[in-house]
Amino acid sequence: MYGTIRIERNEQGKAIPAAEQSLGFGRYFTDHMLLVDYEEGKGWHDPRIVPYAPLSLDPAAMVFHYGQAVFEGLKAYHCVDTGEVRIFRPDQNAKRLNRSNERLQMPLLDEDFFVNAIQALVRLDAKWVPQKKGASLYIRPFVIATEAGLGVRSSSRYLFVVILSPVEAYYDEGLKPINILVENHYARAVQGGIGDAKAAGNYAASLKAQALAKEKGCAQVLWLDAIEKAHLEEVGSMNVFFRIGREVITPSLSGSILAGITRDSIIQLLCDWGVPVTERKISIAEIVQAYEEGTLEEAFGTGTAAVVSPIGSLLWGEKQMDIQGGGIGELTQKLYDAVTGIQSGSLPDSRGWMVSC
Amino acid sequence: MYGTIRIERNEQGKAIPAAEQSLGFGRYFTDHMLLVDYEEGKGWHDPRIVPYAPLSLDPAAMVFHYGQAVFEGLKAYHCVDTGEVRIFRPDQNAKRLNRSNERLQMPLLDEDFFVNAIQALVRLDAKWVPQKKGASLYIRPFVIATEAGLGVRSSSRYLFVVILSPVEAYYDEGLKPINILVENHYARAVQGGIGDAKAAGNYAASLKAQALAKEKGCAQVLWLDAIEKAHLEEVGSMNVFFRIGREVITPSLSGSILAGITRDSIIQLLCDWGVPVTERKISIAEIVQAYEEGTLEEAFGTGTAAVVSPIGSLLWGEKQMDIQGGGIGELTQKLYDAVTGIQSGSLPDSRGWMVSC
Repeated sequence: MYGTIRIERNEQGKAIPAAEQSLGFGRYFTDHMLLVDYEEGKGWHDPRIVPYAPLSLDPAAMVFHYGQAVFEGLKAYHCVDTGEVRIFRPDQNAKRLNRSNERLQMPLLDEDFFVNAIQALVRLDAKWVPQKKGASLYIRPFVIATEAGLGVRSSSRYLFVVILSPVEAYYDEGLKPINILVENHYARAVQGGIGDAKAAGNYAASLKAQALAKEKGCAQVLWLDAIEKAHLEEVGSMNVFFRIGREVITPSLSGSILAGITRDSIIQLLCDWGVPVTERKISIAEIVQAYEEGTLEEAFGTGTAAVVSPIGSLLWGEKQMDIQGGGIGELTQKLYDAVTGIQSGSLPDSRGWMVSC
Repeated sequence: MYGTIRIERNEQGKAIPAAEQSLGFGRYFTDHMLLVDYEEGKGWHDPRIVPYAPLSLDPAAMVFHYGQAVFEGLKAYHCVDTGEVRIFRPDQNAKRLNRSNERLQMPLLDEDFFVNAIQALVRLDAKWVPQKKGASLYIRPFVIATEAGLGVRSSSRYLFVVILSPVEAYYDEGLKPINILVENHYARAVQGGIGDAKAAGNYAASLKAQALAKEKGCAQVLWLDAIEKAHLEEVGSMNVFFRIGREVITPSLSGSILAGITRDSIIQLLCDWGVPVTERKISIAEIVQAYEEGTLEEAFGTGTAAVVSPIGSLLWGEKQMDIQGGGIGELTQKLYDAVTGIQSGSLPDSRGWMVSC
């Protein structure tokens, strides 16, 4: 299974974006990519790092028809303490990718191989890791079904791919609060569905509500549970936290929510700091009540792309609820500084979250 | 927009499976495929029929990551009356593809172009249309997002593809009743979701329940609504009908059910025949009651692949409900014969369902 990773170098290489150039998110890609094939009976085999190039797939490849496609997102940082490149909690992404694989009837990957292969790829393209404050190298592992066939069933062949993209800090000029629309009509996922898997299909299902939110001046939607339309799930593609009085709360992992790795990191930090944090069901009614009683102190989203994203206001029907007067809460800022400090190497990594390449 | 379809012939051609060879479903593909590009600001352009060949896509193509992929399925038949090739209700597939496109924030296709392009492709590969009774040429149109980028939003580029596959009659030796598991845990779709779109992601979400049903000796699952787990939705990838006493009932299009074209055809036929047919909410409790009272006369699934598929038994928890003693109901057989008769040209097409190439 697997075997040694063969490396075919990209001798020409592409131009690396200049330091002053805007990177955006997922627009530039590095010189190399990792590929591993899977075939029923043979398992994962032929791991190789090759020049970044188009994939050639039969038009009947099952990923195009029946959507077996799962992915992960994590980041490598140029760390300011020693100058080395480190990756944030890749073992957690390996575990979650396998949970997604399992849910979509796709083959599991060896989790150590996943981490080692990403380390090897990032090492080879290390010169692409941006040094600008807040910027990083975004790592996108994904698995797609490649068997050519139109019967509705699990594919017998897959491709595991990792690509790398130098990305900007999500907020170039520091944190910026966003407006959020509480979504009351469309649903992203439901109990018994695949909402807790990082599956491509979940994202396609979210685009329409997202576009309608934009039209109302909101950056993201806050999804409610699909059954009662009462309980909070997640914000766009982030998990969500609220501070009500002294307590921090976040929706528990109900089965239709993605188990964010930044979410988990935030909970650990709060516990370490002695801030009361609870994972539980949270209704929108409770949030409205806290807002009206003046105890809704802070709200923020968490995810790999933005790390921590302050929520400036919630739009719920006709009701607009401003939080922190549309500004950034103290705890929100403190959490952002703590996580990005560990990631960039400016704060000590006492939890062993950072993995060197 | 669009322009003339350019044709690049496959001069070599592939070997067409011999008449006695088993075709299966979606395993063989013809000599040509249709491609049309879409780009924001430019619209759909460069329609072309080219030799069937792999697609070359950037590894960051959005279809691999955020699942914007919708498809259709329809069939062309070698008709026994005049020997010409005809397609079953392609205008309905054009309409439904656009409803799927709309739901997934993808660009609409001109519906006349859709039909004309498929006619042109089938004409060119007409020698691939099987002449064996019950066999047909399966037509698979699909649209995928092709922009290379990792921001979560609608793609600015798409590819519309049509491929063709000669397929067997679903049941080689005539109709065969199947066992169905009533699924009580997993969900395929929910109100406000994308269950009424023919989106790739819906199929990936169904595979696990499908695999578990197989382990229990069932060919498909019967999905219940995701909210109350009480009302019937669809069977695997088919719509479902029941005959209780003299009345035929089928779940109404609630928003989480695919609007099947065979479903619509069956309803029209029943109306024409004066058989009472009702589209409404149907609970599993009602089916159990009818079974126990001895009025559950027939049950069948409908879809493009199998046309009409008799249900021999329903497994609901520990309860197994045999229908027609596991045999084929009279009305089920009559509907199958009527639809396949129109499709094959052995019965008159008084409704204008068949479109010549």
